[in-house]
Amino acid sequence: MPHDMAGVSLRDMANAIRALSMDAVQKANSGHPGMPMGMADVAAVLFSKFLRVDPTKPDWPNRDRFVLSNGHGSMLLYSVMHLLGFPEMTIEEIENFRQLDSRTAGHPEYGHAAGIEATTGPLGQGITMSVGMALAERMLAARFGDDLVDHYTYVFCGDGCLMEGISHEAIDLAGHLKLNKLIYFFDDNHISIDGDTKLSTSIDQKERFEAHGWNVFEVDGHDPDAIEKVIVEARKSDKPAFVACRTIIGYGAPNLQGTDKVHGSALGKDEVAATRKNIGWTSEPFVIPEPITAAWHKAAEKGREAREAWEKTCEAAPNKAAFEAQYATTLPENLADLMAKARADIVTEKPKVATRKASEMALEVINGASDLTIGGSADLTPSNNTKTKGLEDIKPGEYAGRYVRYGIREHGMAAVMNGIALHGGFVPYGGTFMCFTDYARGAIRLSALMGIRVVYVMTHDSIGLGEDGPTHQPIEHLAIHRATPNLLLFRPADAVETNEAWEIAMGETKRPSVMALSRQGVPTVRSGSVSENQTRKGAYLLKDPGAVRDLTILSTGTEVEIAVEAARQLEEKGLKVAVVSMPCWELFEEQDAAYRKSVLGSAPRIAIEAAARLGWDRWIGEDGRFIGMTTFGASAPAPEVYEKFGITADAVVEAAGEMLRQ
Amino acid sequence: MPHDMAGVSLRDMANAIRALSMDAVQKANSGHPGMPMGMADVAAVLFSKFLRVDPTKPDWPNRDRFVLSNGHGSMLLYSVMHLLGFPEMTIEEIENFRQLDSRTAGHPEYGHAAGIEATTGPLGQGITMSVGMALAERMLAARFGDDLVDHYTYVFCGDGCLMEGISHEAIDLAGHLKLNKLIYFFDDNHISIDGDTKLSTSIDQKERFEAHGWNVFEVDGHDPDAIEKVIVEARKSDKPAFVACRTIIGYGAPNLQGTDKVHGSALGKDEVAATRKNIGWTSEPFVIPEPITAAWHKAAEKGREAREAWEKTCEAAPNKAAFEAQYATTLPENLADLMAKARADIVTEKPKVATRKASEMALEVINGASDLTIGGSADLTPSNNTKTKGLEDIKPGEYAGRYVRYGIREHGMAAVMNGIALHGGFVPYGGTFMCFTDYARGAIRLSALMGIRVVYVMTHDSIGLGEDGPTHQPIEHLAIHRATPNLLLFRPADAVETNEAWEIAMGETKRPSVMALSRQGVPTVRSGSVSENQTRKGAYLLKDPGAVRDLTILSTGTEVEIAVEAARQLEEKGLKVAVVSMPCWELFEEQDAAYRKSVLGSAPRIAIEAAARLGWDRWIGEDGRFIGMTTFGASAPAPEVYEKFGITADAVVEAAGEMLRQ
Repeated sequence: MPHDMAGVSLRDMANAIRALSMDAVQKANSGHPGMPMGMADVAAVLFSKFLRVDPTKPDWPNRDRFVLSNGHGSMLLYSVMHLLGFPEMTIEEIENFRQLDSRTAGHPEYGHAAGIEATTGPLGQGITMSVGMALAERMLAARFGDDLVDHYTYVFCGDGCLMEGISHEAIDLAGHLKLNKLIYFFDDNHISIDGDTKLSTSIDQKERFEAHGWNVFEVDGHDPDAIEKVIVEARKSDKPAFVACRTIIGYGAPNLQGTDKVHGSALGKDEVAATRKNIGWTSEPFVIPEPITAAWHKAAEKGREAREAWEKTCEAAPNKAAFEAQYATTLPENLADLMAKARADIVTEKPKVATRKASEMALEVINGASDLTIGGSADLTPSNNTKTKGLEDIKPGEYAGRYVRYGIREHGMAAVMNGIALHGGFVPYGGTFMCFTDYARGAIRLSALMGIRVVYVMTHDSIGLGEDGPTHQPIEHLAIHRATPNLLLFRPADAVETNEAWEIAMGETKRPSVMALSRQGVPTVRSGSVSENQTRKGAYLLKDPGAVRDLTILSTGTEVEIAVEAARQLEEKGLKVAVVSMPCWELFEEQDAAYRKSVLGSAPRIAIEAAARLGWDRWIGEDGRFIGMTTFGASAPAPEVYEKFGITADAVVEAAGEMLRQ
Repeated sequence: MPHDMAGVSLRDMANAIRALSMDAVQKANSGHPGMPMGMADVAAVLFSKFLRVDPTKPDWPNRDRFVLSNGHGSMLLYSVMHLLGFPEMTIEEIENFRQLDSRTAGHPEYGHAAGIEATTGPLGQGITMSVGMALAERMLAARFGDDLVDHYTYVFCGDGCLMEGISHEAIDLAGHLKLNKLIYFFDDNHISIDGDTKLSTSIDQKERFEAHGWNVFEVDGHDPDAIEKVIVEARKSDKPAFVACRTIIGYGAPNLQGTDKVHGSALGKDEVAATRKNIGWTSEPFVIPEPITAAWHKAAEKGREAREAWEKTCEAAPNKAAFEAQYATTLPENLADLMAKARADIVTEKPKVATRKASEMALEVINGASDLTIGGSADLTPSNNTKTKGLEDIKPGEYAGRYVRYGIREHGMAAVMNGIALHGGFVPYGGTFMCFTDYARGAIRLSALMGIRVVYVMTHDSIGLGEDGPTHQPIEHLAIHRATPNLLLFRPADAVETNEAWEIAMGETKRPSVMALSRQGVPTVRSGSVSENQTRKGAYLLKDPGAVRDLTILSTGTEVEIAVEAARQLEEKGLKVAVVSMPCWELFEEQDAAYRKSVLGSAPRIAIEAAARLGWDRWIGEDGRFIGMTTFGASAPAPEVYEKFGITADAVVEAAGEMLRQ
């Protein structure tokens, strides 16, 4: 065993990970010791010999990215961060593993400590976000040169990540795009929770990755010399690199290693003691021998030097300011003016367009004003209207473009966008049909949980898509997004609101937005001054009858047109009717009670939305009516589908009649 | 070109598919002609030479299953069904393609016509359901012998299906289980909606499938002889078979074939005319020349003969009655008694158990009483408590067991369960963590849309899972399922309600159920008589204060215990408090208004549920209070997480004080 630094071997450095991990899990009596102990040797080599991170400046733009995709092995990451000296990752945090308000959550949580590059735990997300990071790195390099941007993205993953379907989407896209600075380390330990992986898979991972355009390497995951050699090779790969590390899960625990018993439970007092003896670890729990700490700090020191050298390069670079603005994703100052001007044009011209088309109109303004945005679609470009003029495709080996052909990979697209946003430098947006947010749910949830700016362009947002039928007609999807914390769902009624929604989404740096956009055309319902962004209030009186109100009709999106028509008919009968457009419930909830009350009023309320009722009772009250969907949709031209399900102005008028007679 | 029947060539038969497809899409001015025209030759050979279906008895148990996974090519299926003579698939239906209330929806809809084996359209679902069908076939054969059960499962799929992540889960599991009577025909046309597939993928599908344990075949998809030969070979495969059919999308349309223009739009009048000329099709739209119809009917005749021969075999089989009961999934008559008896035992013993454990207790009764159930888990068997005593694993080549090791493949598991249920003969249930229903959403939605009996055993259903933290703590997931039409979400409060939920789920043949089950223990809150299944009413007065009520506390699942404790504290203060347990909102909504009113009462209401608020306003009214989650969760021991988010009896008591003071 080689002793690299002050007589400390890489195995000693790895054993520090093992000890911290098993002791933290033991103290919490909760967690997963098997993976950190099994991958400790690989981690020790990777972090001490290759990984360029600097604990004194963890957010250095050109640092290598490290993603622990098998997030249940979080103690590996926390151990390494502590050993390297990340200031937030104190020994107290390690001791408080999985305890309330600690930085050391059960799974790595982005934002808990600088150095945690992504939230992982739901399997397969990390390996896919890393594709986005590696792509962002190449896209930045294409713009600013390899002097400023030139780092690797390293990923640990396990059987779970590679069994999940999203892994296919990730590796197919990464292989296609030839992201050769992306390196996966596969913890090939043959064990999952249920037992031997042979219970459920017979795959040849090496052949699989080769088929997807990766270079494949194999190594004994407990042989530091071999690990070092293989990383040297993997870094030279002309394709993304897959390094299968043959490991023993829970390596070091003499009686339990190699079994599913070490996967997800504490080793137990006796086995912890036996492991100490077995690996020759004499320190008390949470105490690291000084020479080992020194060796790890020395590794960190190399990161600091690399960072300082890079900063010098950056200082001297002529495009420094541009790079910094790009990396910080600073929006152009005139964007608000440009958006308002576009709104003014819409109000003048009053186009009848689908809101997906209105979204394209808004994107023309945004993409023209700024090159921060990276567009894309999961193979529905002509339907999602996501590719504006002049946006060139990103291609294998050519990363100067601004449009990603994500392929028919909704989940992969969402997770890759998360990775792009996490990396820094870009604001990603991507399109598919609203119904297929189902496929992307796992990654959309992570956008919200991590609190990052990703914009989902979800067109064909209701039964209004017509002939494609129930499989393609969203019913529950608005509710799904409304129920998700820290996520904005916009369902704009016309081209003005669509513009406003985009303006808000671009400015929301700490939460993702989902745009629910129509296939079918809608008239411009807004009029008058559009200098103020009304959508920012979430809901507003589109039609205000003044002091006296007999009825309030609440609606969103394409049904606002119906609400307006119903109001017109009811007014002909002499009623005073308010129409409320509610493009974003979440923003409306954030308004003060007085504003909310002024909008909702105290008159009887009817809501109309071509979707499930769930959630509407909050706005219509106990005596209110809801006109919407109670079943799945139907395949037919859109007007007939609306008629079939009774989502019509007539239905509103009838309901109003019943309510007001009572 | 060979002329097989009465001078009609296979190409003629294929051209009938082409003509019907292009004419139907043209008439609807909506739909996807490219795939049916491209795969028409493969379909003509497969259906006329191999596929055993009988239009006169479309639900014959031992028929071959055919799944059109690239469901947008629905006109291929409808054309073939019409040509074979399926009675429901009249020429009028073909003419009404994509029109209201026709059987010929935009995408194939299960239940619209006998012969449509599955709802497809969301890509990748069909190829995965077919794995379930092929597995069900082998499982039935293991029980009743190859004389009674011995059919193939044939699947058409396109690039989209194979790009979707779920395809990885499907083919990995099928390869592992050696389902050698499953045959995929890949429409290898190099075109997707955005254009050439080279825009987004560089995969080697053949190498990929080989890595997953499949045998791979290639064929010119426009050469009937070669197609016939390759099918003969594929049927002999000792592994699942992947047949890559090199085709030209829109084959026959002289100016547009081979381009993305024929993928998803009508050809247009001129190109339809040009195609007629090009393929020598002289008939008017929707008219099939008699000799071609005769050739197709002759193919159907072979199916009828095969069915009749099978029926004779079946008549003579000693296990005929058992087979028929199994295939019809007839539950044992004494199941209700056994479940009620188990409930009586629970009420006597009053165990404090997690509802996931209670689910295992219910499953012990069900699985002991009937061998219709097929259990499984996405690699969380010890956590989901899905494997009851005596359930043996299903293994590669050994299909007598009743437990599927689905691997870390939630989406695959759900879609495979859909396939098992569609095939007939079994009631599938499968487990994962509630949070990871996110990954399975696409297939859960299809369970609901198709209206089939699949039971999702979703444990760790709230922040109560504790240390694993926000990525594993469901917040919006109860709302997601409640918003989904035709799906029952059960969140039982104790072992009695869990038993009741299972009893209901087993009897619901036309809709799926999701069980939201706890990690943490809960006391038995029910007492008294349990002969009547209270959960059947969806919600009921767990604690009824009688005629006078000061307050009603509504709750579900693990929070019912908190509601009961809060009620106790409030009663000490002299208040009359009702506690309502609401294990299934959907069933409660189906009760009459009088019952609902009797449960909800007219006193102020507080709801407590460790989840998102969305939907609760329906039950608490405008002045009600909701105690639950407004953000994502946190990693810590469960009691501390509850305390942190204020989901406590104290919070209920405090809210009650505020409400009643007003």
